[in-house]
Amino acid sequence: MPKKIIKIAQKMQKQQNDPVVILANPQLGYNIGAVARVMANFDLYKLRLVNPRDSWLAEETYSSASGASGILDHSGIFNNVSESISDLDCVYATTARRRDMIKEVLSPKSAAKDMRTRIKNGQKIGLLFGGEKSGLSNDELSYADTIITAPVNPEFASLNLAQAVCVIAYEFYSGITKGELGRVTESDKGRTEGLPLEKTRGANKNEYIRFIEFLEKTLDEKGFFHPVEKKNMMLNNIKAMFQRQNLTQKDIKILFGIFKHLMDE
Amino acid sequence: MPKKIIKIAQKMQKQQNDPVVILANPQLGYNIGAVARVMANFDLYKLRLVNPRDSWLAEETYSSASGASGILDHSGIFNNVSESISDLDCVYATTARRRDMIKEVLSPKSAAKDMRTRIKNGQKIGLLFGGEKSGLSNDELSYADTIITAPVNPEFASLNLAQAVCVIAYEFYSGITKGELGRVTESDKGRTEGLPLEKTRGANKNEYIRFIEFLEKTLDEKGFFHPVEKKNMMLNNIKAMFQRQNLTQKDIKILFGIFKHLMDE
Repeated sequence: MPKKIIKIAQKMQKQQNDPVVILANPQLGYNIGAVARVMANFDLYKLRLVNPRDSWLAEETYSSASGASGILDHSGIFNNVSESISDLDCVYATTARRRDMIKEVLSPKSAAKDMRTRIKNGQKIGLLFGGEKSGLSNDELSYADTIITAPVNPEFASLNLAQAVCVIAYEFYSGITKGELGRVTESDKGRTEGLPLEKTRGANKNEYIRFIEFLEKTLDEKGFFHPVEKKNMMLNNIKAMFQRQNLTQKDIKILFGIFKHLMDE
Repeated sequence: MPKKIIKIAQKMQKQQNDPVVILANPQLGYNIGAVARVMANFDLYKLRLVNPRDSWLAEETYSSASGASGILDHSGIFNNVSESISDLDCVYATTARRRDMIKEVLSPKSAAKDMRTRIKNGQKIGLLFGGEKSGLSNDELSYADTIITAPVNPEFASLNLAQAVCVIAYEFYSGITKGELGRVTESDKGRTEGLPLEKTRGANKNEYIRFIEFLEKTLDEKGFFHPVEKKNMMLNNIKAMFQRQNLTQKDIKILFGIFKHLMDE
């Protein structure tokens, strides 16, 4: 499968006010690339790195970014957290641990809602994530307006860096979209919840009844209903089975095809 | 930071009916390890691998699993999808692409709710994920009862394998927990949304008024309110500023400390 390359520069222009993802002291190129990929998955494009390890920009960084390498190329590099956030209005920091600072704690879902409200009001938002080794220091965390902590296994709470970005970006994006799911291409319009019935539709009662009548006649001819005094009960069970299945018009055609073929044998 | 090792065997016994994560044709040990880690993050422990690449169990598999290596050690290996699901009652498969099969599509959130209902009714659930190269084949997908498709950037829809597991596991876990967030240890009871006020409380009106009176007196003595006819307006602005800040009892003490110190200089 050829890798899809996403064009970042235009995206960054279009989304002036979208949240900036800031990674403090990231260590592994693989993770930084994975962050870029999942940002693009959820329509975020602005990445800043604070004091990344010297060797961060390696082949594996680009390979794990998949087609989102443009996010790496356009990322900003900063010496410390305060420089990285100086043009922002509100910073959310993620941590699973308790800190002795009194800052509001929000779940990813509530934080995403809060972010969307602030963005509507013209604020520039930053999402601050700590490095792989020990997360955010208390000093780094002190710059945050709000702490985001996810509902996680309390005994095994430390998310991989890219997974932490994934959870926040997913919640942010989920609240923006209006039920559209998955990929859209020229031949694929994407989908919403429910049965995808573009090429057919649910069978109507007439089609369903014609099929049941055909099946009853067929089974009668073959002496299936035996003993005959149980026919009604047997037929009702058969009807209930097919009724339960939310058959489509296409399904009814397939079933007609199967039974007609078996009758002709 | 010493790695937390999570003990898997007990967890698997306790959670008889929890969803089984099934990876079809996974290629990269790093991703399989990352899947194990994020499963443990969201309290899932049962992993099955269908036809994994020969070299899957490498050092990097364990390193990316972090402390969740027990999930790898207890994982089941199968030759094909039908073997891997034969003891289950309901299988959800994840894909971002449209398929020409008429199966119900659910978002991760709706699927998680559906899963929880089925589990309550005693069903055993499988979550089927395709390999890194091209996801699930139509044959593999044909075993699924329901398709899960996430809200993603329609132009860049393909999630990394471990990120796809992350989104589903996060939604499943979020609906089970009752607002508890983050890590719990002997010294850390975890937290819920809001201001963490275990060691203090919001300042009451008396504390707030005493502080404002002290500040007014102090600033009066130092001739801050100038011209005097503007004093009321200036004082009201100062009061509004401190009122807005949801000060705690501890904050009031800090502020008293700062201003008293400056007065004594």
